[in-house]
Amino acid sequence: MPFPYNKITSEGVEYLKNVTACERVKVKEEISKDYYHDEMPDYGIFPPEVFVEALTTEEVSAVMKYGYDHNIPVTVRGAGTGLAGGAACKCGGILLSLIKMNRIDPVDKMNMTVTAQPGALLTEVSAAADEAGLFYPPDPGERTASIGGTVITNAGGMRAVRYGVTRDYVRAIEAVLPDGSIVNLSSNVVKNTTGYDIKDLVIGSEGTLCIATKVTLKLIPKPNCTQTLVIPFDSLETCIECVPKLLQLPFIPTAVEFLERELLEIVERQLNKMFPVPDGEAVLIVMYDGSSKDELNSACDLAADTALNAGAMDVMLANSPERIGSVWSVRAAILEGMKADSVGQEECDVVVPRAKIAEYVKAAKSIGRKHGIRVEPCGHAGDGNIHTEMLRDAGMSEEEWKTNTHKCLTELYALSKKLGGQLSGEHGIGNGRLDYLEDFVGTRMNDLFKSIKLAFDPKLVLNPEKIISFKK
Amino acid sequence: MPFPYNKITSEGVEYLKNVTACERVKVKEEISKDYYHDEMPDYGIFPPEVFVEALTTEEVSAVMKYGYDHNIPVTVRGAGTGLAGGAACKCGGILLSLIKMNRIDPVDKMNMTVTAQPGALLTEVSAAADEAGLFYPPDPGERTASIGGTVITNAGGMRAVRYGVTRDYVRAIEAVLPDGSIVNLSSNVVKNTTGYDIKDLVIGSEGTLCIATKVTLKLIPKPNCTQTLVIPFDSLETCIECVPKLLQLPFIPTAVEFLERELLEIVERQLNKMFPVPDGEAVLIVMYDGSSKDELNSACDLAADTALNAGAMDVMLANSPERIGSVWSVRAAILEGMKADSVGQEECDVVVPRAKIAEYVKAAKSIGRKHGIRVEPCGHAGDGNIHTEMLRDAGMSEEEWKTNTHKCLTELYALSKKLGGQLSGEHGIGNGRLDYLEDFVGTRMNDLFKSIKLAFDPKLVLNPEKIISFKK
Repeated sequence: MPFPYNKITSEGVEYLKNVTACERVKVKEEISKDYYHDEMPDYGIFPPEVFVEALTTEEVSAVMKYGYDHNIPVTVRGAGTGLAGGAACKCGGILLSLIKMNRIDPVDKMNMTVTAQPGALLTEVSAAADEAGLFYPPDPGERTASIGGTVITNAGGMRAVRYGVTRDYVRAIEAVLPDGSIVNLSSNVVKNTTGYDIKDLVIGSEGTLCIATKVTLKLIPKPNCTQTLVIPFDSLETCIECVPKLLQLPFIPTAVEFLERELLEIVERQLNKMFPVPDGEAVLIVMYDGSSKDELNSACDLAADTALNAGAMDVMLANSPERIGSVWSVRAAILEGMKADSVGQEECDVVVPRAKIAEYVKAAKSIGRKHGIRVEPCGHAGDGNIHTEMLRDAGMSEEEWKTNTHKCLTELYALSKKLGGQLSGEHGIGNGRLDYLEDFVGTRMNDLFKSIKLAFDPKLVLNPEKIISFKK
Repeated sequence: MPFPYNKITSEGVEYLKNVTACERVKVKEEISKDYYHDEMPDYGIFPPEVFVEALTTEEVSAVMKYGYDHNIPVTVRGAGTGLAGGAACKCGGILLSLIKMNRIDPVDKMNMTVTAQPGALLTEVSAAADEAGLFYPPDPGERTASIGGTVITNAGGMRAVRYGVTRDYVRAIEAVLPDGSIVNLSSNVVKNTTGYDIKDLVIGSEGTLCIATKVTLKLIPKPNCTQTLVIPFDSLETCIECVPKLLQLPFIPTAVEFLERELLEIVERQLNKMFPVPDGEAVLIVMYDGSSKDELNSACDLAADTALNAGAMDVMLANSPERIGSVWSVRAAILEGMKADSVGQEECDVVVPRAKIAEYVKAAKSIGRKHGIRVEPCGHAGDGNIHTEMLRDAGMSEEEWKTNTHKCLTELYALSKKLGGQLSGEHGIGNGRLDYLEDFVGTRMNDLFKSIKLAFDPKLVLNPEKIISFKK
């Protein structure tokens, strides 16, 4: 075991400047405090000992090799938009930023792919595809994420119902291993059974197994029309039971989101954004997109009939950009509304079998009530990924909040497991959920995770003490 | 290192009978010679020391644990339809058949999944989905494969263009690890970022990392109409250049196969099966399926226009079951035709970027000519997976054939690598391609493969000396 790690020395800093450039290496107070954490400072604030910005794969390799040879942790950062505390230097050491490695190669139209360096932003990759008349579907909501970050965390998002998650679009990864070796994980091919599928193992490994220095992504034909249905129901159960019926129709929806009335009311009250459908205890928002208006119209007609037969109170078709905008802007404002409606938030991101969503939501709220915490689940009915927000009301002490959210989370994860679900659907484990993982997956799986980590990183120098802990 | 392995003792045989049943344990001459190899006896004929048929996960676990504790290799077999020599007992030991673990649970319509034991046949799983009004797309051609075998080898097939490969349909795997532990890899959920993605790592691991004892598979809405276009071109290059143009259209084809005229002529000459389109040096066969005739008609119209603009000589629409049958029966008879047209065959199954297919085919044939071997590439133009058959003509000695196919394969793999391709698109490495893997992926990747194997199987008792070798 490598603990304790070595501290970076002034010779070390000089070496890092040599293999990169003086102006791209910073120490101590020169390092912006933004780099002490990701989007979830609650999951830990950790100052790096040294900050290095790399421009090339060779620089990444040299920095990583230095860490490996000198037993100094290296943690990689893209845009810092993660929600699991993954990009923070938990054990000190080197913070290696890839955000300036942001080149996007011209779209390869013959192979329908785009190759980018990890620091390119998702929104830029998506725009490059669009300009070439093609489409890159993954959209976790946070479009200022770095593309490397989305690959290494297997970013999801609500369009996964039709299009799948980031994993489904990764053709190849150029990666730097913890010892500094540069390897290629697959190539620009559609199928591959050439040895173990290391590519899929490192997708979702949250920067703990290797560093992605280049990614090749699959693009698909661009849909050019979209329609959105808003479907109110008089109960959550009826609402959730309708979902599989919609998914069994021939035309697969892009997104199927559910919201309960109390969440809509929070947004209306706090942000003064009105939801266009006033009825129903729960609503489904169903997006369809495709390449022909006729096709979409018939898909929407069939979905509407199906929903009405399944007990929907009504079906509203939002077919103008304005109406579509008004629906989705409320959906997008849910988190902001909840923030305005409380003095603190914690969240979990379980995923359960789609058939179990209603049962999960009811039980989750009841767990919250038991611990004096408002629990507001909502999200991806189409894939069972329920963002479960815990809200702190004024008057709850800091200690009470910490204790009670911990109790809540423990019970919510146990609930998800009991229903056949998983701990995290798309946000990952990182540092924030590490304490809950072993209980969830069991000791044998946790040991296997440890063996996998050691197979890549026998000295535990790459983003240590994330996902799994060797210190415990 | 575990070598040499222990031999099974008579006490061992008794123990195995105790944990399973007397009539399901066989030794020596009691074991059918069919179990000495898979569909490729050329990749090695290896008698097991003992043959055990398991009926439950607990039996699998007990047998595996016995092998682990006593340093005796265990190799798992489903239907034995593999094409890589993967299911043969290369190092002796126990052959564990799962073919009687063939239960298929009722289709879960709410979650749109089916759960099956590994010995259920692909054709049975597919029929169960169909009876429930749903569709299980993976079809590697060999539909008598066991479902467990298709999962553990990540079976592909020509429908991958539209639907993806087996990996894309695996929601969860119950698995027995080499030490006999029973674990669950994911569950019936659509997204999962709960720790390392072990599920995707073991898919395609060819029975070397764990034993799949139950699989949960995603089903999709059933398409109910199909159409096939046959498109002749005056050259292979024009034919292959047309493929990306078809794939960029909004409606994605199910399959895009290419055949050169000389292959069609072999089938016509040897099997007297006539291909309905007499023109063209190369033809594309393009299948579309979907849920509405109108949609398919417009997809086919657009594809036909696109192909004609891209230089096609003609477009034949096969829209009756008879005409569709006549096209696909010739495609399906290619291998049989080549067998009839030669006295021996060897094959490789490289995958190259789609844009490189024509270049690969030309160069592959020229490599064959250099070594006096007919090389006939054909197959999946839609995904760049080129089945490259090497044909032995009468008059070539056994030794010459062995030496020359080895030279051919070495050069074909180097060619694939040069073009940005991979060694195997869907058949896997197993025993038959093991000698070529390290050269292909490089020493660092091969070492990483070894570390992964050791992370699961530190005693190297599960299907040893497949994919990677520790003896070399």
